[in-house]
Formats: sequence, structure tokens, C-alpha cells
Amino acid sequence: MSILVVGSVAFDSIRTPHGTVDRCLGGAATHFALAASFFTHIRVIGVVGEDFTAEHEAVFHARKIDIAGIERAAGNSFHWTGEYRENLNEAQTLRTDLNVFERFQPKIPEAYLDSEFLFLANIDPVLQHQVRKQMPRVLMVCGDTMNYWITGHAENLAHMLHDLDALLINDGEAKLLAKEANLVRAAARIMEMGPKTLIVKHGEYGSTAFFGEQSFPVRVCNRFFRAPALPLEEVVDPTGAGDSFAGGFFGYLASQLEITPAVFKRAMFYGGVMGSFTVERFGTERLQQLTREEIDERFGRFRELSHLDAE
Amino acid sequence: MSILVVGSVAFDSIRTPHGTVDRCLGGAATHFALAASFFTHIRVIGVVGEDFTAEHEAVFHARKIDIAGIERAAGNSFHWTGEYRENLNEAQTLRTDLNVFERFQPKIPEAYLDSEFLFLANIDPVLQHQVRKQMPRVLMVCGDTMNYWITGHAENLAHMLHDLDALLINDGEAKLLAKEANLVRAAARIMEMGPKTLIVKHGEYGSTAFFGEQSFPVRVCNRFFRAPALPLEEVVDPTGAGDSFAGGFFGYLASQLEITPAVFKRAMFYGGVMGSFTVERFGTERLQQLTREEIDERFGRFRELSHLDAE
Repeated sequence: MSILVVGSVAFDSIRTPHGTVDRCLGGAATHFALAASFFTHIRVIGVVGEDFTAEHEAVFHARKIDIAGIERAAGNSFHWTGEYRENLNEAQTLRTDLNVFERFQPKIPEAYLDSEFLFLANIDPVLQHQVRKQMPRVLMVCGDTMNYWITGHAENLAHMLHDLDALLINDGEAKLLAKEANLVRAAARIMEMGPKTLIVKHGEYGSTAFFGEQSFPVRVCNRFFRAPALPLEEVVDPTGAGDSFAGGFFGYLASQLEITPAVFKRAMFYGGVMGSFTVERFGTERLQQLTREEIDERFGRFRELSHLDAE
Repeated sequence: MSILVVGSVAFDSIRTPHGTVDRCLGGAATHFALAASFFTHIRVIGVVGEDFTAEHEAVFHARKIDIAGIERAAGNSFHWTGEYRENLNEAQTLRTDLNVFERFQPKIPEAYLDSEFLFLANIDPVLQHQVRKQMPRVLMVCGDTMNYWITGHAENLAHMLHDLDALLINDGEAKLLAKEANLVRAAARIMEMGPKTLIVKHGEYGSTAFFGEQSFPVRVCNRFFRAPALPLEEVVDPTGAGDSFAGGFFGYLASQLEITPAVFKRAMFYGGVMGSFTVERFGTERLQQLTREEIDERFGRFRELSHLDAE
């Protein structure tokens, strides 16, 4: 099955306690696509500038990711500059140069219309909604958003939320969106806003899926499912961890013939696994070097560190 | 097997977003003892004042907890006044009246010397160390501490840490004690300070056990084990959750003939289970009403919400 992802393909300049990188390949769609490409076929819609060269294309091609949907525009690509201090859970944005992204109007190539799965990475909810409308036949839609859209574009976001089978956000975003400090009540409120399932990412503490009465494609036992995160001695760069989680989660789902509760739970684990790799190196470096064998070995470690009966 | 616990038996006046209670039965040793009493036989060492009446004794007796080691002194019992605002993870101490606790010198009754397990609840590390020295034959010692002792009594705490098979503290305390923001590195540093195993409590995100080369009584696979917490719609009062975790964890361990890795992991789950009950009501109310059937039913829910193969 194919996943169509729409989102940013960008360059990131990042400073963390472990060092700095200047203009490395990044963007939500990039991290998502690389992570998901280990599980299924990925097609990307985005826009880049003249600074996106054959070298960057090669990163996608090496993972057999279809980038025919990445539009080339005059000017520079989206460029994010950010910093992580001692608290590696939270990025400080130092500068955002939207560049070609400012006038981005997603166009879906004819050849992409048969994609079975759709991931709306974190961009303007108006654009997310437009893409969703043009893909009426997809089987499942997941999406992401962030504080900026929650606080400043609530009405547009409200339309987008009705498009989603599952929304993937972090703790702070969930509480902000629901205006509710208790996560269980926040989740219930968010599922009333449209998403049939909510997945909340807790960074180093793992993730929780919340299921509602309408949850699709599955409703897993007990209303909740929690997947662990791997305790890591060294977090070099958290950028892209959430998008890699989404890629692992959705990529695994899309690779399966049927989405059963057991498949959904394994997808949550694969999300955590992919996030844990991304943070080991700057930018996309770790995902570029990764093998499926390493992924499955780490999946086993996630099982061992959380299961009563594993040895 | 018997657990001897030394710590505070107190009264708590608590305000949370759910209401207030005035002078309800509390204290670390109280919550620990009540939680652990569902698994094994508990003996308590502490001190109370004249305000500790037959009504309060009855709470312990109802759970068959031996309180012959609770000394009666002239004056009032230890009284803590605190508040939880919207962030229910963190208590604001409004007032601490040590009262009879100020001159507490733990005395171990002859009949307690054959206790196989020892829990040093959060009190002055000098007293914790004294008790440990008087119990040379115990099989396993666990202990707790808090920011106050970490920052102001580092030298005394250092002695106490060498007494411990396992230290149970929360995230912030672990990072403060190790002077290290990364939890894995913090855990390694703390295990160099004495404790053979470290259990870090993450509140609503569960708990992690860290095992070192010397870990005793068991070293569980992969250096880490993570137990979940139950997502709760309503946290009425978090007071005593950590002590209840310790009681469930240590009580279950002490109830088993042999402490294998599988037993240790189940003990982590039982810790989370007992903490999840305590926060449902003010003070010790929920633990007083609890049944073993409810505990095992919730243990099953913890398994379902974290295990790939549970239905």
C-alpha cells in the first residue's frame, strides 16, 4: 500500500549540547518519509527551492521514496534555525525562513491519486484540508499540527480535525488544543473535535493511544494503549523525532493487509523505535544509515523493556 | 516474609482542585504500609503524638499491620499542609509542623529484628542509616529520599545510599542527585553512589528500573525495565502515590519465594497499580477500601494497556 505525505521538505540549522549543524536536510515530510520508507511505499508532496540539489534528491531515492510530487520553485527552500538547551524536550526556534514555502499550494500528481493512506504533516491546516478533499478514496488519514496553528488558526484547524482518523501530537499540544490539563479528559475532548483516535507522544516516556467510541480502523482494549520509549544515554538532536514516530507508526500500519488491534499496537511500538533512532544523530543522518534488521532488533528491545514475560 | 518500614506517620491537610481535607491520616510509612499490606506482613516504626487515637490505630489493624513499633510521645503528630494546583504532579508545601517527629529516634522492638525486608521511607538519612545498621540480617533494603536531603544533607545521604539495594525516587530527584539532566546517565551515576538498582517514578508516565552490574537481587534484561501508569480521568489527590508505589513494589517482592527477573517486573507493575488507586481519593481513603481482587483486576489492565499480545 502507498502513503501520500504532504508537508515540509526543508533545511535545518540546529544547535544542541552535542554540537551544531548548518543547513542539513530536514522537514516534517522528510523525516516522516524516511522513517515510513522502511515499511511501505512513500510519495511526497512539498516544495523546495534551488538549493535542493541532486545530493538531496539522492537521500530520497536511496530509500525508494517517490518525490515526483516535490515541486521546484525559484528561491530558497524553507529553512528552520533552532536550538535545544539542556532540556532536550523543547526546541527554541531562533529563526524561520519560509522562503518558497510561503506560497506553497499543494498539487497532487495524477499518479498519486490511488494512494491508500494519507499523512498530513504539520503545515497550515487550510492546506491540509485542501489535500484531504482531493483524496476522497484514501482508507485512512493521519495528521499532525502544532501550537502555532492551535492558538492562532483555531477555526481552520477545526475543519482539518474532522478529516482525521488519527491525530498525532505531543502532550503540551493536546492539553492546549483541549484547554484541559488532564490528559484523559483532554483526549476525550479532542476526539469530540473530529479525530477518531488520538496518539499523544510523551518524548522520553513513550506514547499513548486513546480510542473513542468511533475509533477507526480499530478500537483497542481498555480505551488506552501505551508504548514505551527507549531510555537513551545520548540524545544528539531531537529534531524530527515526532515525524519519525509518525512515519514508523503509519508506515507499519500501511504495510499490513488488515489493521487489527494487534497490528495497531505493534505500529505504536514501531513509532517509538523510529523516533529513538532519529535522535541518535543530527538531522536525517541516522535514518539514512539504518537497516530493517536494526529496526526489528530494536523492536525486540522495546518489547523486552516493557513486557512482563519477555526475557 | 515481613517488611519493616521506618518513616513518618502523620496528618496531612491538603488542598487540590478537587477539594480540601483537614488533618487526614497520612505519612510515608502509612501509605507504604497500607499498600504493602495487601501482599505481605508489615511492621512499622515511627512516632505519633496524642492526636493519634484508637480510630487511627484501627486503620492499621484493619490491614493487620503491626504497629507495636510506633512510639507515642507527648505533643502532636507530624502535620504537613500542602496544595496541588492545576499541575497535580507537584505539591506546594504550605507548612510543615514536625512536632513529635523533631526528636524522633527510631527504636527497633526485639520482635522486629527478624524482618527479612527493610524499607527506609523518606526521613533524615542519618536515621535511615541508623536503622539499617541495626538490621544486619535483612535480605533486601529499599529506600526513598527527597530534594530537601539531596541539597542540604548530601554527606549524610551519601552514607545512606550505600545501604540500599534499591533506591526509589522521582525524575527530578534523580537528576538533582546525579547533577545530570539525562536520565540514563543520571541512573548510572547514582548506582555508583551505592544503590545497586534505581527505580525512577515518572508520575503519570509510569516508572523505569535501571539495573547495574551489581544489581541485586536480580539484573533484568537490557539494563532497563519500564512499567506503565494507568491514564486517569480524575486525580483527586496525588499525596502518597510514590509511597504506595513503593509499598506495592516491595510488598509484592517480599511475598515471593524467590526474586527472579519476572517477579521483579511484576513488582514494578504492582507498584504502579497501588499508586493509581491512592490518587483516586484523598489521603488513605482508597487504600482503606481496597480489595485484593481489585488490585489483580487492575494489574490485568496494566498488562493490557502495555502488552502487544494482550486482548
